[in-house]
Amino acid sequence: MGDASGAGAEIVIKALTQPTVRSLCRPIAIGDAATFRQAARIVGSDTPVRGIERLADATFDDSTVEVLDLRNIDLPKLVYGQVSAMCGQAAYECVVKAVELALAGEIAAIVTSALHKEALNLAGHNFAGHTELLAHLCGVQKVTMLLTAGSFRVSHVSTHVSLREAIERVKQQRILEVTRLTHAAMRSMGIAQPRLALAGLNPHAGEGGLFGNEEELEIRPAAKAARAEGMNVVGPIPPDTVFFRMHEGQYDAVVAMYHDQGHIPTKVLAFDQGVNVTLGLPIIRTSVDHGTVFGKAGKGTARPDSMLEALKLAARMAGAPSA
Amino acid sequence: MGDASGAGAEIVIKALTQPTVRSLCRPIAIGDAATFRQAARIVGSDTPVRGIERLADATFDDSTVEVLDLRNIDLPKLVYGQVSAMCGQAAYECVVKAVELALAGEIAAIVTSALHKEALNLAGHNFAGHTELLAHLCGVQKVTMLLTAGSFRVSHVSTHVSLREAIERVKQQRILEVTRLTHAAMRSMGIAQPRLALAGLNPHAGEGGLFGNEEELEIRPAAKAARAEGMNVVGPIPPDTVFFRMHEGQYDAVVAMYHDQGHIPTKVLAFDQGVNVTLGLPIIRTSVDHGTVFGKAGKGTARPDSMLEALKLAARMAGAPSA
Repeated sequence: MGDASGAGAEIVIKALTQPTVRSLCRPIAIGDAATFRQAARIVGSDTPVRGIERLADATFDDSTVEVLDLRNIDLPKLVYGQVSAMCGQAAYECVVKAVELALAGEIAAIVTSALHKEALNLAGHNFAGHTELLAHLCGVQKVTMLLTAGSFRVSHVSTHVSLREAIERVKQQRILEVTRLTHAAMRSMGIAQPRLALAGLNPHAGEGGLFGNEEELEIRPAAKAARAEGMNVVGPIPPDTVFFRMHEGQYDAVVAMYHDQGHIPTKVLAFDQGVNVTLGLPIIRTSVDHGTVFGKAGKGTARPDSMLEALKLAARMAGAPSA
Repeated sequence: MGDASGAGAEIVIKALTQPTVRSLCRPIAIGDAATFRQAARIVGSDTPVRGIERLADATFDDSTVEVLDLRNIDLPKLVYGQVSAMCGQAAYECVVKAVELALAGEIAAIVTSALHKEALNLAGHNFAGHTELLAHLCGVQKVTMLLTAGSFRVSHVSTHVSLREAIERVKQQRILEVTRLTHAAMRSMGIAQPRLALAGLNPHAGEGGLFGNEEELEIRPAAKAARAEGMNVVGPIPPDTVFFRMHEGQYDAVVAMYHDQGHIPTKVLAFDQGVNVTLGLPIIRTSVDHGTVFGKAGKGTARPDSMLEALKLAARMAGAPSA
């Protein structure tokens, strides 16, 4: 469901009523059924929303949207576009329930709507974002965020840290770890022999040591180690060239050295249409690549594009044929 | 001319024989006339190349390409695609001559082809790039690189330094200085009331201090100071959002906090088609936004797109009507 004061529930209703989605997976929404019912009215959907108590009660009937009902929103108190502890807590509970079901093998993959960090914090859950929350719930530490937009795919050596701290995290071992996760993810997406490129950290990838030495000390050794493990990896490639080259089809994915290095090109090419995938979890998790869309919440106008792509990718990673 | 072992001369011939260019300016090539003559043969141009000794001898006749002949390439020794001190020295001399003429007011603007840094260094001229050389020749220090691609325009607080050093250069005074230069440049390009945005340095522009404090300590005060001077400036804006917003038309230019922050989105959107403008010089200077194109040198296949845009922009900045 994501944050109920955003457009998450509306987007889920729009997405789950599309035949393409139904042909790829058996979806179940997790959240507050009354909130989803209200969202269905807002978007003008005729498909009934059916609340269920347990996953075992799901029929996966195409003619309904089934919601595993956590009954955690007091609907009269819900104000669209307003940060609240109630919505933060409810969003948190949705993620917890989804992870629990995924870890138990009862669902094949999780697709998440946007959280609102402030609301999450108001509810007493201090996480920088979904990725950190999921890693915590799964008890893992070596995770990374992969952003995808069509054949444009970027994983990140670090994400929600200052640029100063991000530079400190550009270490051979971590780069190799993210390269392995990226390689495995490409294979799970159906690319048998993934072609990966490691971005440099500095302008012109350091220009032979003239503008920084992380390329020679950390990135090049990581690329070499990855090749020794049998992966098809090149780099470091100048940061202002590597993404264009991927866009032209030379690579299947780029390992970015910090958050904005990967986010800037992806969002320029596909703002709000990308998909965010957490790599390194014991479960499959994709997510919309946009925020809570407070400005459109309650209006029925938010677009489900990113959610649709996130659903398709999750289904693919879980073994469904390509959409 | 740029580096003679690259495709610069071929690109210049292709560009200067286009009627659009002739309608906007009276162009003169600076370099080795014999090299330009060979380039004309390579690209299959029928337009004669006429070498002149002094600018005063130029006729600006549309039926010829006139070259201020520095006679600095020993043609039998020229090998396309090969770095040499001869070509580095010749390219250096072209820039020196162009700056001399521009500072004397004999030409209205300079448009440069690509240098090869290694060749330049072999010839004993140690500069990180064109920008640094031009600043040196003009005796100025407060310069910045503006990259443009259509209505996508990015200036940079720093360029050819390591990312570590770039962070140190994110200081209120420097940001304000680059903002002023950017504002003035937009006006010289015909935008009466430029809308500028300052990018943040850290992910999510620091998320309220959670991921770094340069936004609050340096960037926000710079934006405030710029507004106090009457400029229309917003920011800091999250780096992964600001470029998309400019692409959508919300801003006329973005002030990027470091080289790749500005170069990555520009090159993903317009690789090799952008124009590089040096701001802060006492003269007008635009440049192609690509390298020496060694791979295509001598083959006649290099595209003049970036050179054409650079010529049009220089003409515009020098007062010609919009192309």
